[in-house]
Amino acid sequence: MQVYLDNNATTMVDPLVVEAMQPFFSEIYGNPSSLHKFGTASHPSISKAIDQVYKALNASDSDDIIFTSCATESNNWVLKSVFNDLIVNGDKNHIITTEVEHPSVLATCKALEREGAKVTYLPVNSQGIVEAHIVRSFITDKTALVSIMWASNETGMIFPIKEIGQICKEKGVLFHSDGVQAVGKIPVDLQEVHVDFLSMSAHKFHGPKGIGALYIKNSQPLSPLLHGGEQMGGRRSGTLNVPYIVAMGKAIELATTNIEEKMASIRAKRDRLEDALLKLSDTFVVGDRKNRTPNTILISIRGVEGEGMLWDLNKNLIGASTGSACASEDLQANTVMLAIGADSELAHTGIRLSLSRFTTDEEIEYTIEHFTKAVQRLRSISSSYAKVGPTPGGEVKECELHH
Amino acid sequence: MQVYLDNNATTMVDPLVVEAMQPFFSEIYGNPSSLHKFGTASHPSISKAIDQVYKALNASDSDDIIFTSCATESNNWVLKSVFNDLIVNGDKNHIITTEVEHPSVLATCKALEREGAKVTYLPVNSQGIVEAHIVRSFITDKTALVSIMWASNETGMIFPIKEIGQICKEKGVLFHSDGVQAVGKIPVDLQEVHVDFLSMSAHKFHGPKGIGALYIKNSQPLSPLLHGGEQMGGRRSGTLNVPYIVAMGKAIELATTNIEEKMASIRAKRDRLEDALLKLSDTFVVGDRKNRTPNTILISIRGVEGEGMLWDLNKNLIGASTGSACASEDLQANTVMLAIGADSELAHTGIRLSLSRFTTDEEIEYTIEHFTKAVQRLRSISSSYAKVGPTPGGEVKECELHH
Repeated sequence: MQVYLDNNATTMVDPLVVEAMQPFFSEIYGNPSSLHKFGTASHPSISKAIDQVYKALNASDSDDIIFTSCATESNNWVLKSVFNDLIVNGDKNHIITTEVEHPSVLATCKALEREGAKVTYLPVNSQGIVEAHIVRSFITDKTALVSIMWASNETGMIFPIKEIGQICKEKGVLFHSDGVQAVGKIPVDLQEVHVDFLSMSAHKFHGPKGIGALYIKNSQPLSPLLHGGEQMGGRRSGTLNVPYIVAMGKAIELATTNIEEKMASIRAKRDRLEDALLKLSDTFVVGDRKNRTPNTILISIRGVEGEGMLWDLNKNLIGASTGSACASEDLQANTVMLAIGADSELAHTGIRLSLSRFTTDEEIEYTIEHFTKAVQRLRSISSSYAKVGPTPGGEVKECELHH
Repeated sequence: MQVYLDNNATTMVDPLVVEAMQPFFSEIYGNPSSLHKFGTASHPSISKAIDQVYKALNASDSDDIIFTSCATESNNWVLKSVFNDLIVNGDKNHIITTEVEHPSVLATCKALEREGAKVTYLPVNSQGIVEAHIVRSFITDKTALVSIMWASNETGMIFPIKEIGQICKEKGVLFHSDGVQAVGKIPVDLQEVHVDFLSMSAHKFHGPKGIGALYIKNSQPLSPLLHGGEQMGGRRSGTLNVPYIVAMGKAIELATTNIEEKMASIRAKRDRLEDALLKLSDTFVVGDRKNRTPNTILISIRGVEGEGMLWDLNKNLIGASTGSACASEDLQANTVMLAIGADSELAHTGIRLSLSRFTTDEEIEYTIEHFTKAVQRLRSISSSYAKVGPTPGGEVKECELHH
């Protein structure tokens, strides 16, 4: 058996999605910008895909949804173009984000700081989220943009996006949310929540890698990141990636149809796994279950280095993560765990397990068995854990982790 | 029969390329940045694809080849980052390009002018190319970048890239070439020609739409366009699009293996078609054959509106173009024809026919038959052509087009 539990890093493309894109490689292959039938043959399928994305997000006809090459592009686009439009060529100077955003937001903010932007990185609370009143307290009349993720890639914790959106609307500040870990996993209703810009990525919901989108409320102005042939109404140039556009439409439809049922099924497996792992002594999970995406567990195992654990799991063909895949090549402490106040030793023990709708009960049982064995084996050879010994009652003083 | 003769706009994905990418959707689907076997399983295939691109271009190990989402991204990246690095944060102020570049270069240059860059748009000669000595004459000590296409999308004319590269090297000015219409169509040997940056796009050589690359000589500095997870050595962030990377490697290998033979085969068909169409009175082709990509004909038919011609060809299931697909939704005069000095009426009569290695002799014969009929029909109902009548001897005073 092999078990893939790294679905927050990327997902298997749904075979139905693979099937949907096939005709657009060697049969309906014209450039959609061409006037002849080879070009126009793809138009109905592109329109359908766009409709599928609008429907999944409950977006309005007056909004724009623009396909990009990935959420990294969507995030760079919003941050850099708002910087250009409202800071370089306007009278603002300030961007608000959080300490726990994805690297595509954080690294872009760092780059914009070097260009003269002032950036506030809001801290998270013990649950790993930013509270809405904190956002309010940092907004000034110089604030151009608030950029806060909808749900955390590392912990699955869901941020108070509705409240933050309301505050931004009241204050007249643009609000961008990196929705990569929310879209396709939990309901995202853009009639219910005020966001100006929402980034998303198909490969997080069983679509292909290499396509994402940016939702733009009321088709409001935002200078392009990519100039050129004026595709997508001039908002994002570049020949349309027809197979992946069709794939993204299909994938978001599959992910969001009966999403409550899908969530319940995934949550049941996740909770079974989480309950079993928490029976191990000195294990701690970040964040309340009720406010977490239903597929995610970030668990800390005192005395067990995350990298060692990954290695043991990998030997048993279980794919997990110590955190963001983007940073996984560095053997660093989990940044979110540090941000919520975990000590450095504990932050090196984080393991993220992220399920999908393809995860089976058998895979969960297999994971429980091998995860447990790995913890026992690694603790038996851990000098630090042997020396200190199990913490009585699993109590953690250093930070409030959810046990 | 249907005949696709718009291969400069986009190409059919080679079925071998489609086959090569299939395993990377639902089997080997891990994130290549992940440490577990699901992630690392794709590494050998990614390495192979990178090797295939290096080999096709005869690049050095000391060079970088970075995958992007398209040549529009590659072109935007070079122009905007050189602007940022050497103009905003340096002591240069000037970019040199041509009047006939692809919209992804021209529109980006227009955007940079609004940000304060001085841009020189060099004129082309009667052959539709920029002469190297003209480039030399415009370089100043404030010039940051020369950006000139390797071959024209509209005419197929090949620019004197070797000479221009040598001049830029002597002058110490960065040289970027949009190689989209050259790579995979004609030999591109980066040991023979000095370019600092070369843009390319897989969908022009029977790879998929939505992936391109940027070659960077000697891995020299260029600030990123997309910040984030530090993929590709930090040069271009975003989860790797594994299926398309594998596809691009396979496509460039197939296109460039025995390229001289492939060119000879395509050229023979192109010349057969061109000879036949030039037998029609008052028809003119832009540029000498010997200095053109072997697949391209830009033909002008006095008295016949390009759009009407397209419509007639389309009815007969022949896909052609009036010029760049990116601009084809606007019924404008062909910009290259205007640039080389054609009058406005003639510039509205341009039809581009672009072949591929999949074009057959039967398709050529079919096209000759239906193209000829269309010209006859449209001229018989053309008020302007009927009024003026055929030009004696097909002579064209307004500009020097190649007959």
